[in-house]
Amino acid sequence: MKLWDKGISIDKKIETFTVGNDREIDMHIATYDIQASLAHAKMLQKIQIISAEELQQLTEGLEALQSQLDAKTFVIEPQFEDVHSKIEFELTKKYGDVGKKIHTARSRNDQVLVALQLFYKEHLKLVMTNTKTFFDTLLQLAETHKEAVLPGYTHLQVAMPSSFGLWFSAYGELLIDDMYVLEAALKTVDQNPLGSAAGYGSSFPTDRDFTTQELGFKTLKYNVVAAQMSRGKSERTIAMALGSLCNTLSRFAMDICLYMSQNFNFISFPDELTTGSSIMPHKKNPDVFELIRGKCNKIQALYSEVLLITNNLPSGYHRDFQLLKENIIGAFMDVNDILEIFNHSIQQIKVKEIDLTDEKYQYLFTVDTINNLVMEGVSFRDAYQRIASQVQDGTYTPDMSKEHTHVGSIHHLSLDKIRDKFPE
Amino acid sequence: MKLWDKGISIDKKIETFTVGNDREIDMHIATYDIQASLAHAKMLQKIQIISAEELQQLTEGLEALQSQLDAKTFVIEPQFEDVHSKIEFELTKKYGDVGKKIHTARSRNDQVLVALQLFYKEHLKLVMTNTKTFFDTLLQLAETHKEAVLPGYTHLQVAMPSSFGLWFSAYGELLIDDMYVLEAALKTVDQNPLGSAAGYGSSFPTDRDFTTQELGFKTLKYNVVAAQMSRGKSERTIAMALGSLCNTLSRFAMDICLYMSQNFNFISFPDELTTGSSIMPHKKNPDVFELIRGKCNKIQALYSEVLLITNNLPSGYHRDFQLLKENIIGAFMDVNDILEIFNHSIQQIKVKEIDLTDEKYQYLFTVDTINNLVMEGVSFRDAYQRIASQVQDGTYTPDMSKEHTHVGSIHHLSLDKIRDKFPE
Amino acid sequence: MKLWDKGISIDKKIETFTVGNDREIDMHIATYDIQASLAHAKMLQKIQIISAEELQQLTEGLEALQSQLDAKTFVIEPQFEDVHSKIEFELTKKYGDVGKKIHTARSRNDQVLVALQLFYKEHLKLVMTNTKTFFDTLLQLAETHKEAVLPGYTHLQVAMPSSFGLWFSAYGELLIDDMYVLEAALKTVDQNPLGSAAGYGSSFPTDRDFTTQELGFKTLKYNVVAAQMSRGKSERTIAMALGSLCNTLSRFAMDICLYMSQNFNFISFPDELTTGSSIMPHKKNPDVFELIRGKCNKIQALYSEVLLITNNLPSGYHRDFQLLKENIIGAFMDVNDILEIFNHSIQQIKVKEIDLTDEKYQYLFTVDTINNLVMEGVSFRDAYQRIASQVQDGTYTPDMSKEHTHVGSIHHLSLDKIRDKFPE
Amino acid sequence: MKLWDKGISIDKKIETFTVGNDREIDMHIATYDIQASLAHAKMLQKIQIISAEELQQLTEGLEALQSQLDAKTFVIEPQFEDVHSKIEFELTKKYGDVGKKIHTARSRNDQVLVALQLFYKEHLKLVMTNTKTFFDTLLQLAETHKEAVLPGYTHLQVAMPSSFGLWFSAYGELLIDDMYVLEAALKTVDQNPLGSAAGYGSSFPTDRDFTTQELGFKTLKYNVVAAQMSRGKSERTIAMALGSLCNTLSRFAMDICLYMSQNFNFISFPDELTTGSSIMPHKKNPDVFELIRGKCNKIQALYSEVLLITNNLPSGYHRDFQLLKENIIGAFMDVNDILEIFNHSIQQIKVKEIDLTDEKYQYLFTVDTINNLVMEGVSFRDAYQRIASQVQDGTYTPDMSKEHTHVGSIHHLSLDKIRDKFPE
Repeated sequence: MKLWDKGISIDKKIETFTVGNDREIDMHIATYDIQASLAHAKMLQKIQIISAEELQQLTEGLEALQSQLDAKTFVIEPQFEDVHSKIEFELTKKYGDVGKKIHTARSRNDQVLVALQLFYKEHLKLVMTNTKTFFDTLLQLAETHKEAVLPGYTHLQVAMPSSFGLWFSAYGELLIDDMYVLEAALKTVDQNPLGSAAGYGSSFPTDRDFTTQELGFKTLKYNVVAAQMSRGKSERTIAMALGSLCNTLSRFAMDICLYMSQNFNFISFPDELTTGSSIMPHKKNPDVFELIRGKCNKIQALYSEVLLITNNLPSGYHRDFQLLKENIIGAFMDVNDILEIFNHSIQQIKVKEIDLTDEKYQYLFTVDTINNLVMEGVSFRDAYQRIASQVQDGTYTPDMSKEHTHVGSIHHLSLDKIRDKFPE
Repeated sequence: MKLWDKGISIDKKIETFTVGNDREIDMHIATYDIQASLAHAKMLQKIQIISAEELQQLTEGLEALQSQLDAKTFVIEPQFEDVHSKIEFELTKKYGDVGKKIHTARSRNDQVLVALQLFYKEHLKLVMTNTKTFFDTLLQLAETHKEAVLPGYTHLQVAMPSSFGLWFSAYGELLIDDMYVLEAALKTVDQNPLGSAAGYGSSFPTDRDFTTQELGFKTLKYNVVAAQMSRGKSERTIAMALGSLCNTLSRFAMDICLYMSQNFNFISFPDELTTGSSIMPHKKNPDVFELIRGKCNKIQALYSEVLLITNNLPSGYHRDFQLLKENIIGAFMDVNDILEIFNHSIQQIKVKEIDLTDEKYQYLFTVDTINNLVMEGVSFRDAYQRIASQVQDGTYTPDMSKEHTHVGSIHHLSLDKIRDKFPE
Repeated sequence: MKLWDKGISIDKKIETFTVGNDREIDMHIATYDIQASLAHAKMLQKIQIISAEELQQLTEGLEALQSQLDAKTFVIEPQFEDVHSKIEFELTKKYGDVGKKIHTARSRNDQVLVALQLFYKEHLKLVMTNTKTFFDTLLQLAETHKEAVLPGYTHLQVAMPSSFGLWFSAYGELLIDDMYVLEAALKTVDQNPLGSAAGYGSSFPTDRDFTTQELGFKTLKYNVVAAQMSRGKSERTIAMALGSLCNTLSRFAMDICLYMSQNFNFISFPDELTTGSSIMPHKKNPDVFELIRGKCNKIQALYSEVLLITNNLPSGYHRDFQLLKENIIGAFMDVNDILEIFNHSIQQIKVKEIDLTDEKYQYLFTVDTINNLVMEGVSFRDAYQRIASQVQDGTYTPDMSKEHTHVGSIHHLSLDKIRDKFPE
Repeated sequence: MKLWDKGISIDKKIETFTVGNDREIDMHIATYDIQASLAHAKMLQKIQIISAEELQQLTEGLEALQSQLDAKTFVIEPQFEDVHSKIEFELTKKYGDVGKKIHTARSRNDQVLVALQLFYKEHLKLVMTNTKTFFDTLLQLAETHKEAVLPGYTHLQVAMPSSFGLWFSAYGELLIDDMYVLEAALKTVDQNPLGSAAGYGSSFPTDRDFTTQELGFKTLKYNVVAAQMSRGKSERTIAMALGSLCNTLSRFAMDICLYMSQNFNFISFPDELTTGSSIMPHKKNPDVFELIRGKCNKIQALYSEVLLITNNLPSGYHRDFQLLKENIIGAFMDVNDILEIFNHSIQQIKVKEIDLTDEKYQYLFTVDTINNLVMEGVSFRDAYQRIASQVQDGTYTPDMSKEHTHVGSIHHLSLDKIRDKFPE
């Protein structure tokens, strides 16, 4: 194993293998571990496992660590395998036996679980807020460009008239569906798992309702086995929910890339949002939108990863679960970046005037013409045949003047009704 | 292409290729197409595209077809490519020009969409009802077996005391999380797409609020482009929601198969729920539960199929979407079968008495012993070290008498609180 | 469960649930089971478990069943759970005790395994033959259209000159990579599993080398546990291999759909290969190519299904494996259909003349111009800057006359070398 | 976006978004970019684009950079977006105009492609070497433990006698199938893409045969469009091949975790390969093997990621492809770590003596008993019935003495034949 051999002993390699990059990842959840430890300590005092004085010390100690975090001086040194052992070590170093008491009535399992769920909760809310911002932007753009016509396609073939108003607000309205799944994910993680210990509870008379209230969880995951099994299940639901949102964003980015192609030429962006080529001096490539598309597709793949890691494992904790957090936490970071960048970029869009009299768009209005005949009393199928013949023999001439009036149509976007549907 | 060649002409093959098994699949959605056609016809009359008399004829015609469906005499003959052309043909055959008017102001696209969404809605509700039934069964079993002890495992290693009560109700409580995702899916499909026509709306003054009310949809998908894009998006959300439920069922089935192994020997089932072997006369195999596990895993894979078919496609209808319905409809059938069979089978479970004094379970109570020391004032970490030494030198003796009192623990299952959490 | 209840008893439902659609699927493997049974019987006679006379009877019986299959009169009646019990029943009905002997020294497990592997082997070869046919077609089309220019795109932006010759032969050459994976799959299934019985071999002195030779397998899966574990592993490899081929076909179909769009307008197909719309009389939709794309994407998703069903299962047979065969067998059918239809359709392609002097293609030749400067002694980066300035200030004029000479380039397709690379 | 806002300007964010972690990842491919740049420079001199003296300078410059890499002093500073611009910058800084010439007749696209393919090639070979080492270990363990009996399971139910010899060599033989797929992946990447430039070749008279030979590629990807499309296709094949290997490793790790459970108690490992618990002092958890399983499952999920990123994209480069390399490169690192650690750990295994006379294993030998009857002339089906009755009425007594003689069976492992099958 020449290429591989870097003079590292196999024992060292195994240690690295099991710890993985937990230290790095755990920086994201340190603040939540401190929150949960504080709530746990308060509860221990309430049920008289520790004294008021001991609680005071632990509170001080944990707040000091939070200050280090805020000041960005908090470091998980290599001798600690994760943030949890680091924090316990610091408390014990400072307060001796008191520090050793903080792990009473909990296990590493529920300690990690509760910290992750607090992280997930806060970041899901942030995703939802950012989604709302993006939704508002899209509906604003729809309003601004509601008169700008756009050919509508089916099968990538020119089909019927559409508009930029319809296009922007379509993606806006689809975000509402994504919100439903995000809400489901939020409900799933908004249940306190603390107190489940290693997944089978504890013989201490812990007060789980107290920590639930203290940590702001909406309810408990009552059953301690169920609480442990949230590991994997929560990540699965989050992967779905982020994936759902990314599905909408990715498809929107695909449209953008296509519409920027010279062959469509429907939109453009300022130079600072396009990228050049190392050999073609004329290129203005839509890299930002391609990367949005690609990153969103990558996030959609997370679900498979979560499933394959957890599938067919019997109940009870397995170390495999440790591997779930890295890419889920990364996905939260990415989704929020994407939403911010997409929200910024889309506002720079330049909507072009499209010449619908161009030959390639000549049949865009055939259905409107058929409908005119129907309004005059011809049955739909007969009107269809008549216009089909005109298209065939080249006598068809479009009438572009037709107003569409029904709710949700090109000339009646119903943006207010769409806004009303957006979940609070 | 010898093996392949069955004397079928290439044109015939292409026709078969494009039609696929639509005729067979469409039998599942025929009744929903009739419902939607009726609502559409009423609306056409309301906006005076057809007369009251014409509506009367269409109503009669559609009701006659529904009667054929009920009587199981409805057949989609080979000359029709799908149920929609069959129905329009029958109406035209019977009522001439009136039949030709039913397609006014709609397209095959929104006709398929609305029928599928009605199917999805009704079947999602059925899944939710069946999930509730299964939930009730599990909580009942938890109540019945709450005293029956079970070793709890982490890492598949004997860990801490659990119980059948905890085990049954854990899977029960997890079903609540699955309900959240099912509810999100229901909200997603409970939006009327009818009126979006080919995905760009119509120049007719259709009354989409009327059909929404008529069909019992909670709201509209207002934007017509968004309505069309529900195709794929709805299936994606359903695949997630059914997959979520199946994830819980599959893991439960895995536990069952493991616990039936002679090496665990925690449970058994009557002979009619086990299967023999073609060469081993002693075998009583858990085929039913293996098939539940396998089918649930298959359904979890549907999400990848839906994604791969739809990913990176620009907006607007593509024929690829036709391929989505087969396996989604099949999954609904399978999930409901699985829930019914699982609900029936699990009630036949025989819970065995497990001898926790067996040597392999000797350390099941070490944490309880540590906790006793902590209650006497020893710090957790010191108590841990003391018991670790006893385990090491063979002097440890378990105390199995400890009552667990906190909410959600082995001796305090909190089933009522779990029942209260189940969504209405 | 009203909707669901069809008056079928739960026991009947469980039976249906476990048998599934095995009877229907097994029609595809009946002939292979007969082949394997014949080889097995010959071996039993060779090791003197049955007499020459008994072998004669079994041979007659099996050949009679094969004749029924050929005549399409072979039916697996509802009382049989699969083809294997049907065949054994027929032999026993006809020859009494002799029929009962055919199952000696084998198990249902290796009986299914060997039949499936024979099916897989034959159908993989067919896929490879059909791939070669399609490859030949593509290289022929490349030759035919080697002078027809095509704009080349990167990021969907007009980039550099390409040609239909390059385009057709690119997909041709990519098929060679797919052949490598197909060959790997063929090697994987070309190993005789017969004799592994239930996965742990047999106490009979079976002659596995004999059946290997008799059935034309290249080698044995020696280890009987490994042989059993091929179940799932073979399907995984096949799913990858078919998926690999489908990946190439799907991307090619995507190009076709895009190039047929009026905005590209690079190619067209005769009317019999396009499809109309129910409301737009002018539409000529590329449904055949969209369905090729969609079906190929569906087949690419099979890998996830196989993985999710088998993942994390301990060694030894599980009934879950029964669920693998349906979609794998279906995928073989689909892939061969797709190859035949694609091969037929692509030959009908009409390549259009593209006007590269159109404004949107004006910068297609910038790199050629830069290269001319480099040939005159300017450094690449300086030449790049100079042309970039010309593009910027509008003074750039293209030179379309440049011949590309290197191997694999637009004017030097090297089709013979690509043909030489295609695996035998 | 409070939580998110770190005072970074949106432009800076977009830059970070597009560059991603390319600088970090590119450290893995720097050496391959240098190799390819050297070969490219030699070729430029051969076709007289640069002079012998210029080649001399570029060679010196590139070798100096390689020395920095070897000495670990090579750094890609933040002002460079990737390793490629860094290297070109260094050459230009040192040699002026000469440095500007190195990019002649190539593009960033084929530069990245060729460097990645060289990386993939070398690392695939390393994976194959490490697989061979692991294979040898398994076959050695099979030889060592060939007499150690093990119950064989089907459906997780006690089935028939197996052995540690069979178990170890089963996983060994399955690795051969994985080698077939790894070989296919190696063939796929062992084709020189250099000279394809941006995916449409070059107007320079480049000598692609020369660089092919210089870089040690077995052949060329001739067609320049096909060469560009290798991006994504190569990663897809690698994801399959690594996933295939990981599938075998993961299932093996699952068996290990199960067999270490007290309820199976078939094997154990020294303390340094097990991990304790934060609350249970008796625990010796199989974390190393759980992490092998989990990481292998994660790698199996890579295929979905690659597919979702690339699926349905039209031909030609898209920036999305940039996102493929991170996890593929990481997977190579992980697979090689896993193979090394697994190879080391498995050699520490302690195989326990299993008491097959224990009641739970009492029916392990029923098939052997049946077979004895068959050898005495009873038909298989009748013998089966007879033993089934004995099992039923409790009169069955096992005969454990039967020798299995056929190739690949418990007493005839045929390890040499398995060794012979391993690809060179």
